[in-house]
Amino acid sequence: MRLGQRAIQIEGQPIILTGAPAINKLLGREVYTSNLQLGGTQIMYKNGVSHMTADDDFEGVSKIVEWLSFVPDKKNSPVPISPSVDNWDRDITYFPPPKQAYDVRWLIAGKEDDEGFLSGLFDRGSFVESLGGWARTVVVGRARLGGIPMGVVAVETRSVENVIPADPANPDSTEQITQEAGGVWYPNSAFKTAQAIKDFNNGEQLPLMILANWRGFSGGQRDMYNEVLKYGSYIVDSLVKYEQPIFVYIPPFGELRGGSWVVVDPTINPDMMEMYADEDARGGVLEPEGIINIKYRRDKQLETMARLDPTYADLKRQSANKSLSTDELSTIKVKMTEREKQLLPVYAQIAHQFADLHDRAGRMQAKGTIRQPLRWREARRFFYWRVRRRLNEEQLMKRMNVSSAKGLTSRESNLETLRLWSGMPNFDHDDRAVATWYEENRKEVHSKLEKRKQDGVAYDVATLLRSNREGGLKGVAQVLSMLPVAEKESVLQFLSSQ
Amino acid sequence: MRLGQRAIQIEGQPIILTGAPAINKLLGREVYTSNLQLGGTQIMYKNGVSHMTADDDFEGVSKIVEWLSFVPDKKNSPVPISPSVDNWDRDITYFPPPKQAYDVRWLIAGKEDDEGFLSGLFDRGSFVESLGGWARTVVVGRARLGGIPMGVVAVETRSVENVIPADPANPDSTEQITQEAGGVWYPNSAFKTAQAIKDFNNGEQLPLMILANWRGFSGGQRDMYNEVLKYGSYIVDSLVKYEQPIFVYIPPFGELRGGSWVVVDPTINPDMMEMYADEDARGGVLEPEGIINIKYRRDKQLETMARLDPTYADLKRQSANKSLSTDELSTIKVKMTEREKQLLPVYAQIAHQFADLHDRAGRMQAKGTIRQPLRWREARRFFYWRVRRRLNEEQLMKRMNVSSAKGLTSRESNLETLRLWSGMPNFDHDDRAVATWYEENRKEVHSKLEKRKQDGVAYDVATLLRSNREGGLKGVAQVLSMLPVAEKESVLQFLSSQ
Repeated sequence: MRLGQRAIQIEGQPIILTGAPAINKLLGREVYTSNLQLGGTQIMYKNGVSHMTADDDFEGVSKIVEWLSFVPDKKNSPVPISPSVDNWDRDITYFPPPKQAYDVRWLIAGKEDDEGFLSGLFDRGSFVESLGGWARTVVVGRARLGGIPMGVVAVETRSVENVIPADPANPDSTEQITQEAGGVWYPNSAFKTAQAIKDFNNGEQLPLMILANWRGFSGGQRDMYNEVLKYGSYIVDSLVKYEQPIFVYIPPFGELRGGSWVVVDPTINPDMMEMYADEDARGGVLEPEGIINIKYRRDKQLETMARLDPTYADLKRQSANKSLSTDELSTIKVKMTEREKQLLPVYAQIAHQFADLHDRAGRMQAKGTIRQPLRWREARRFFYWRVRRRLNEEQLMKRMNVSSAKGLTSRESNLETLRLWSGMPNFDHDDRAVATWYEENRKEVHSKLEKRKQDGVAYDVATLLRSNREGGLKGVAQVLSMLPVAEKESVLQFLSSQ
Repeated sequence: MRLGQRAIQIEGQPIILTGAPAINKLLGREVYTSNLQLGGTQIMYKNGVSHMTADDDFEGVSKIVEWLSFVPDKKNSPVPISPSVDNWDRDITYFPPPKQAYDVRWLIAGKEDDEGFLSGLFDRGSFVESLGGWARTVVVGRARLGGIPMGVVAVETRSVENVIPADPANPDSTEQITQEAGGVWYPNSAFKTAQAIKDFNNGEQLPLMILANWRGFSGGQRDMYNEVLKYGSYIVDSLVKYEQPIFVYIPPFGELRGGSWVVVDPTINPDMMEMYADEDARGGVLEPEGIINIKYRRDKQLETMARLDPTYADLKRQSANKSLSTDELSTIKVKMTEREKQLLPVYAQIAHQFADLHDRAGRMQAKGTIRQPLRWREARRFFYWRVRRRLNEEQLMKRMNVSSAKGLTSRESNLETLRLWSGMPNFDHDDRAVATWYEENRKEVHSKLEKRKQDGVAYDVATLLRSNREGGLKGVAQVLSMLPVAEKESVLQFLSSQ
């Protein structure tokens, strides 16, 4: 079951290795009264062995069918695009509250509110959550964007209670309840993130949206002991191996810091990963308080004060006068301390603002760490065309990658070729025009691809002949010997004329 | 660090994500006094993030160099074979005790005893254990067999205490001590097994020896909750992807049962995996008690008794007489019960013996589940030549696999070709002769390979030409146009003459 990597479990049906009676026999006492204690959904859905639960077989099969509706019919086929019931060309109307916890599912799927429905990034009603019982500080699932299926990873902003059940076989054990903060990766949620990304990539071949809002990994002793480093590196492994476009988007009022930035930075898989930040998002290794603590501590703030505040500057100048008596000096020092007390909170705030300026989308773009800043209201329109263009492009690139000729297979040169073919002046940024061009010029592009294929075959045959002339010529002779005489003659004619 | 997958940690040097002061600030109290609490070896060696520890940099670097001595100099090179200080041609003199726990490292590396050194399967002094602090019911490492480096996975037979430290950040938490039985896979030891196999395969490309002695997976509620199913399936994943020969050997007095057989059965990777059982080993899905409980319960044993024991048979016949009074019948029943009580223990023992006969090496061979039974004393000689032959063979097979021609790339046909070339009558079983033949006939084999390469190139060129004649001919023309006139003429001559 685990080898298929995906399980939907019916409530009341256990997944077990050894039955309760056999284990009781082994333990020498009646510990378990039912197999459900060992592998019911309260165990298997809570630890991510089961991806979903269902009340009965009908619901289970329905969920399988729904799941399959997101997946290509065979390997390397395009993803199945449904007729969209939700137009791509609309604003997103749900906005997350600044500096306040909320249910991140509302960003994905929208929110039913008193004032009616506030729409999210993806098509209304299309989000199907997976692994929902496990490691709830990360939310994963599949959804559609204007009909295009995507994998989604998003971050819970609220605190979550993690309940580890008592072990029935150990009378001394008790239920353990731990609090897991929102916006932080724990061993379990890092594992879940990596597992979900693997699922989307293997067999499902979905493009991926990561709504990145992490302050870092939890690094206390318990989490270090629970192998947070291993599961964190699994996220990198899963992203490095990803073969469809990945969009990392820091949502409004979201932030990406420290160790969590490291694992989702596009440089680990530059062909597939792109990063964006909302205009109201923040990103940087340290939070402003942290960077101030390193780069702009109290002593530096006092220096600035001496430069900018005339009163403080004057006092400081006086205190430097070496002819002062001890009493006079101490009076001045007291005045200085008073002034510092008065002004430092203001300076601290300004320092905070200043540090915060470094963490905004514009700065990230200037530093080349994101592709461009986005406005949440417009994000659906942007990503719809971006993913549509990238999917078309990747399909074409796969078809271009047929020969062993280096010049014909490098990604950059293939992309450059597509740019030339399209003749688009704004090829890099006008995703809608490029996507439309790809779709409206299929025939032309495919005939160009055929021509390229010819070049590729020519290159490959020449390479083989050069590497082993005797063998190569035998191959040519084999083909010639099968041709009608006239045709063979004309081929030989062609070869000798070159 | 985790991305390199291998870490040697110096004692007193922590591996951390966030420093203790920053975490204290976050927690709002002084929980940690040092970074060592977060990521010292007492955390990182115990959870398998660090593979080894060292006292200082010199020892650390020495361990790296030692580790590298097991690994090929570059990808797909043969493994580095050291001049062996321990002759392949010797008995193994350490024997494990029947039905008693022992240190499995003695099987691998031998045992220093009162009577002197009792030798193990591998070269004396060559075993280097890895991940030794983590999940100690499985023992993994690298060792040499007559100089040939191998990965080793073996099973602890003794019970092990697993100590989970209290969480300093949670005053209510306490240290948890659990007992882990020998010969059973737990979530942690299954994870460790899979991780070690991955390490041996990726980058190290070592052949693998699994001394398999597992009664199954631990399936109680705690272990089910702790994701034993996921880590168990990781073992299968790691074996399926293994690209070097794997030898699964059930050692003397070892056994392989139930779910643990499933994950190491050679059918999951038949090209690379081979299974062997010691003449004194046992294997089967259920242990004899289990199979008797299903196939030969009390009622069946009584039937046998009625068939074989004249006294009981007579009583049974009498009891079937319908003209008996109730008193007479009950007297007979009492006598029957007495006789049953007397004989059943004997029948149970015989049944146990009978069921046990099904679990022996001979039976496993007859069923085709193992390649052959082995005798522990001789196992070193056997595996030395077996691994030497397989490594030579795999290197040749890789070189044979150069063309896209099906007939030239299928593993079976390539192996068949090697058999024909060698002309060995006992090609399947005389590993020493075959290995020696491969090594002594390198030149001949390589020239045959060259010839085969020619056939491969011919096949590939013909295929390309047939798929796209215009492109293919262009390639031929390109090559011809670079040739001197006379040479070009003779090529055209050759082609038209075919």
